[in-house]
Amino acid sequence: MSETIGFAGLGLMGAHMARNLVEAGFDVTVYNRTRERADALAQSCGCGVAATPAELASRIGPGIIIVCVLDTPALEEIVEGVDGLMSGLVDGSLVVDMGTSRVETTRRLAGLLAEHGAAFADAPVSGGEVGAREAALTIMAGGVGPDLSRVAPCFEAMGRSWTHVGPVGAGQVAKAANQVIVGLTLAAVAEALLLAEAGGADPAKTREALLGGFAGSRILELHGQRMLDKAFEPGGRARTQLKDLDQTLELAEQSGITLPLLAAGTEMWREMVARGWGDLDQSGIAKVPRALSEEN
Amino acid sequence: MSETIGFAGLGLMGAHMARNLVEAGFDVTVYNRTRERADALAQSCGCGVAATPAELASRIGPGIIIVCVLDTPALEEIVEGVDGLMSGLVDGSLVVDMGTSRVETTRRLAGLLAEHGAAFADAPVSGGEVGAREAALTIMAGGVGPDLSRVAPCFEAMGRSWTHVGPVGAGQVAKAANQVIVGLTLAAVAEALLLAEAGGADPAKTREALLGGFAGSRILELHGQRMLDKAFEPGGRARTQLKDLDQTLELAEQSGITLPLLAAGTEMWREMVARGWGDLDQSGIAKVPRALSEEN
Repeated sequence: MSETIGFAGLGLMGAHMARNLVEAGFDVTVYNRTRERADALAQSCGCGVAATPAELASRIGPGIIIVCVLDTPALEEIVEGVDGLMSGLVDGSLVVDMGTSRVETTRRLAGLLAEHGAAFADAPVSGGEVGAREAALTIMAGGVGPDLSRVAPCFEAMGRSWTHVGPVGAGQVAKAANQVIVGLTLAAVAEALLLAEAGGADPAKTREALLGGFAGSRILELHGQRMLDKAFEPGGRARTQLKDLDQTLELAEQSGITLPLLAAGTEMWREMVARGWGDLDQSGIAKVPRALSEEN
Repeated sequence: MSETIGFAGLGLMGAHMARNLVEAGFDVTVYNRTRERADALAQSCGCGVAATPAELASRIGPGIIIVCVLDTPALEEIVEGVDGLMSGLVDGSLVVDMGTSRVETTRRLAGLLAEHGAAFADAPVSGGEVGAREAALTIMAGGVGPDLSRVAPCFEAMGRSWTHVGPVGAGQVAKAANQVIVGLTLAAVAEALLLAEAGGADPAKTREALLGGFAGSRILELHGQRMLDKAFEPGGRARTQLKDLDQTLELAEQSGITLPLLAAGTEMWREMVARGWGDLDQSGIAKVPRALSEEN
């Protein structure tokens, strides 16, 4: 493990991912906006701590800096903000964004870093907090081959599989495609289980029956069970799903395509957040068709 | 195998299902509206052939008659039509509808048969033609326990699993729930792969990457590949999916619930059939967002 690794963003996902890197034997230094989370991780697993992104970049030098923050503005702040990574990057630095960010911003940041001799790759993930904790994430990577080969050992320490889906930005495009399926399947499972109940079938038995057929999916298995149990503590929050879907609709528009089901499904997530349920788990989307039906 | 079995409806699914019953050792007599398909099956696997549903019912007597026809009107014709099953049923006859039929009609027919001492159960399936051929169907069964126990050995000869989801009609309700998930997931996968392509990611690599995460499903695996290959020969036809979804919307309305994503998704299937693509495989739903985008 010759590369030194910087890791910025120790949220729900990032803290697990950074710990998995340390446990795989990497020399890791972390940065987090709320310093306490960085100190806690350092204490429990022995990584270094940087006070600012700029300091993180200086300490890592020509190594790899992984960023995993909540949204695109937070990514921009980390890279370009006051005391951002930009001020410490050197020739040979590789920044890898593992959050879910705008494709447009991804491409812009890659261009900006290239001007300074540094490289950028995007590698957003699917698998949620459980996947992050168990090093079982699915990683969708966009970038040039040699950059991704450099970071591959890190991917392997954090994920179950990683796939090179295209040039810089393509990872975010694939993640957007992922969110189309996840966001719509969650809503579909919610409507299906409500229909089973309202129509007089046993919803738990229905889920069980459907798992074996074409309707079977990880979402029906995991989130379907949470919907039956009404166990909506997060997990992945509804407001994050809505943010991702809005970003995806924006990408569709920029790409000149019309996605009618995504448009309709996004409105259900907007409804969920508008009703004050944005901090519930994504499986809480089950509350939306139920609420709409009761108001009918 | 003491029960004698009647089987009405030798379509895309039924012919495989009847053959699997014969091969499992059941004494089977078949009926099909187009006689040639019944004669062909008799010749290849040695089952009996009845000329009408009435004759089928008379020959089976107090045994089990499985019906697997295209839609609800065809089911009503088989049961109540001229020379229908009704005229030959006896005390102890059990009619099992394995097609996808209206819940309302299912309950009405069960009541009608009960007046004549015969029983009715509904046991629609998921798994498509491949599942029917390979005796790997998923069966969602509604009815009373003893009736379903009688027919269980038949289910085991045709399917991989069967689940008792509730009283008569509940099988159709569960199948409707199944179709909500299948119909919407197909459209979601179609939109996701189009987005990947339009956004500049490799759609085949994107499918591969997504299979490992929360977006993973049998539909992404099987139909996603068909969408990439543009291999739209059926398989399960789009017009059947639309028929099922319209029936499901009707059930939702009768049950007093509002399913906004189902309503939006059904319009995509209606668009597909309206464009003359009703006889393509369900994976051909991929053509709809593409066509809408090109017209933009």
